[in-house]
Amino acid sequence: MAVSNIRYGAGVTKEVGMDLQNMGAKNVCLMTDKNLSQLPPVQIVMDSLVTNGINFKVYDNVRVEPTDRSFLEAIEFARKGAFDAYVAVGGGSTMDTCKAANLYASSLHSDFLDYVSAPIGKGKPVSVPLKPLIAVPTTSGTGSETTGIAIFDYEQLKVKIGIASRALKPTLGLVDPRHTLHMPGRVVANSGFDVLCHALESYSALPYHMRSPCPSNPIFRPAYQGSNPVSDIWAVQALRIVAKYLKRAVRNPDDLEARSNMHLASTFAGIGFGNAGVHLCHGMSYPISGLVKTYKAKDYNVDHPLVPHGLSVVLTSPAVFTFTAQMFPERHLEMAEILGADTRTARAADAGPVLADTLRKFLFDLDVDDGLAAIGYSKADIPALVKGTLPQERVTKLAPCPQSEEDLSALFEASMKLY
Amino acid sequence: MAVSNIRYGAGVTKEVGMDLQNMGAKNVCLMTDKNLSQLPPVQIVMDSLVTNGINFKVYDNVRVEPTDRSFLEAIEFARKGAFDAYVAVGGGSTMDTCKAANLYASSLHSDFLDYVSAPIGKGKPVSVPLKPLIAVPTTSGTGSETTGIAIFDYEQLKVKIGIASRALKPTLGLVDPRHTLHMPGRVVANSGFDVLCHALESYSALPYHMRSPCPSNPIFRPAYQGSNPVSDIWAVQALRIVAKYLKRAVRNPDDLEARSNMHLASTFAGIGFGNAGVHLCHGMSYPISGLVKTYKAKDYNVDHPLVPHGLSVVLTSPAVFTFTAQMFPERHLEMAEILGADTRTARAADAGPVLADTLRKFLFDLDVDDGLAAIGYSKADIPALVKGTLPQERVTKLAPCPQSEEDLSALFEASMKLY
Repeated sequence: MAVSNIRYGAGVTKEVGMDLQNMGAKNVCLMTDKNLSQLPPVQIVMDSLVTNGINFKVYDNVRVEPTDRSFLEAIEFARKGAFDAYVAVGGGSTMDTCKAANLYASSLHSDFLDYVSAPIGKGKPVSVPLKPLIAVPTTSGTGSETTGIAIFDYEQLKVKIGIASRALKPTLGLVDPRHTLHMPGRVVANSGFDVLCHALESYSALPYHMRSPCPSNPIFRPAYQGSNPVSDIWAVQALRIVAKYLKRAVRNPDDLEARSNMHLASTFAGIGFGNAGVHLCHGMSYPISGLVKTYKAKDYNVDHPLVPHGLSVVLTSPAVFTFTAQMFPERHLEMAEILGADTRTARAADAGPVLADTLRKFLFDLDVDDGLAAIGYSKADIPALVKGTLPQERVTKLAPCPQSEEDLSALFEASMKLY
Repeated sequence: MAVSNIRYGAGVTKEVGMDLQNMGAKNVCLMTDKNLSQLPPVQIVMDSLVTNGINFKVYDNVRVEPTDRSFLEAIEFARKGAFDAYVAVGGGSTMDTCKAANLYASSLHSDFLDYVSAPIGKGKPVSVPLKPLIAVPTTSGTGSETTGIAIFDYEQLKVKIGIASRALKPTLGLVDPRHTLHMPGRVVANSGFDVLCHALESYSALPYHMRSPCPSNPIFRPAYQGSNPVSDIWAVQALRIVAKYLKRAVRNPDDLEARSNMHLASTFAGIGFGNAGVHLCHGMSYPISGLVKTYKAKDYNVDHPLVPHGLSVVLTSPAVFTFTAQMFPERHLEMAEILGADTRTARAADAGPVLADTLRKFLFDLDVDDGLAAIGYSKADIPALVKGTLPQERVTKLAPCPQSEEDLSALFEASMKLY
């Protein structure tokens, strides 16, 4: 299991200039989005770069929930700048955009689809050396500072897909809990749901020794290994923190203890799912986000319809875990228990409904929209949602049980209304 | 926190030839000791190297509990061989010897003391690039496959000291539970005590935010950070496994479940203490091993007196944790509870004695010698033992409370007899 370099603590961000100097960087690309570019995390990074005499250019045109077009614009900027290091300050959208920019600027003659996961892209392995990338997460959800994954909306097909390679892992993640204090409540909730699903999905993913076929050479091992004794530790720990702190973190922007813990949980879950993988909630979320019609999430300052990633992931979770519990009921009961359910008298056959009910209660308490219907989908959309899920084989094959198109239809249908 | 690449699973060792080929290695040094060189783990590695057409030379002269002299002999071999990669198959002695050989063969003009920790050595930071090193642990204790540490007996001063640098971390650890089946019972017990103390010491180490002074630049951060939210997870998880499986693993060589779990616990505790550090049990163990008179541990096939590392570490543990419990009593009670104590009615002031009693019972059940007296030490040796502990500041400064020479004397005296 490959792992990541993380530095955690209040104030670690201001060391970024020294880190870049230690790496010998002289011409740095600082990526962020328009909202953040006015906020303290970016200011602290810029001050540190100036103090340490490091030349840099700012790219603040990152799109929240990026697209192939927004990736290409950032890649163009990176190629022109010929940078020798990158700093990404923001949420998953910014870190993922920066990873893509670094990759394609380091591989000048590649076509965009070359590194995009199959079957939509060519899924070419990354063999070019990338420049150092320091990730400074400002949301507590994606865990992108620890993973080799970059996700975007492929506009032509209206579906989210990704680039996945260990080579994309940031050189260093600076996990600074103070940055979480600027997050509006719904951003905390939705990014927290991403953490929740990273933990639930990686803990229930197909075990690593049941994955097949076995790769003929270790170099062909996928980034996503299936659940394993190391990822299990991260998943369980992240889930415990979500159970204890997410509601507090959403409700009180000044609860530094709760927000710090969620920031750590995001990193922990990232290390876990970065090794184990995620499965159906994530696989099904990509068309839910990609096919968005008019829904505009509260607290997100963007000019386009948007289903935030964490929301698109969590809305199917009660249906998904009802479906997957048949395979590893003990693990599903354990997850329910960590989330607060009394499982003492539960039987294995109850595992799915028990976990689903626990999740529904958790989401209800956090004012989550009442299912896919509440964010603009109807039964008529199900064929398109299923069609958008099919190419997500990179993740759906890690579900503990295989799923037919009918299964996927039923899961979307069961997710239309939650309460 | 820097972390390590680990591949875990039955059979992963036979992939080593492919891994080396993927790294472009053409001239490999295989290090092991005389006992292991006749056993399956080494045979599997050699077969894999041959199958993959990789040239290699075997160095099987590693000394169990290595000395500066045995390190220098291995270094000489490595320098002459001009290898482009290393494979270490064995316990901590072999992995540590291989790390040192790789370091000094990559730094031809260095004097041996250059990289040895201060105050005995010069503690120079490692700035030369090392060759890839793949570690294949065959004992379940050291965690050396995950750490940047190499420990040896400095014969002139009769004390164990080390070389510590992130640069020494193995490129890859192949953690193959099948290799543990060849271990005799006392080797399982003693190496398990090393895991136990790695977990106890790193969980009770000075917290990372209380370490001072703060380094002026992140590059000066020590390998040992103090206890932190990431190392805590590894320590607790390793401790749980030790509590559940160590006795079974010692008693039944065929208990693959127990031995596999201890093998993982060794790696987990290694990642934990490799970030957090260890403190007094380890600091005091170095003179206990270094000043050995005639004691010869059962089940160790060596021609010299030997206090196995894990034994030298664990014998002071009841005294040490009685002493340190004053600082973080809740954590000490938590450790006692994980090891099986009923702590429901315990008060904070009881934390030290409760944990110490739990440890004494655990050691008694595992037939451990009755304290330092049973391995040949008397009160008259205490000044020499204290003197040998003083240069171990690299670790002792991570104890949660400072300790005077009188404190150290008292700790050795309290460890003369356990039961």
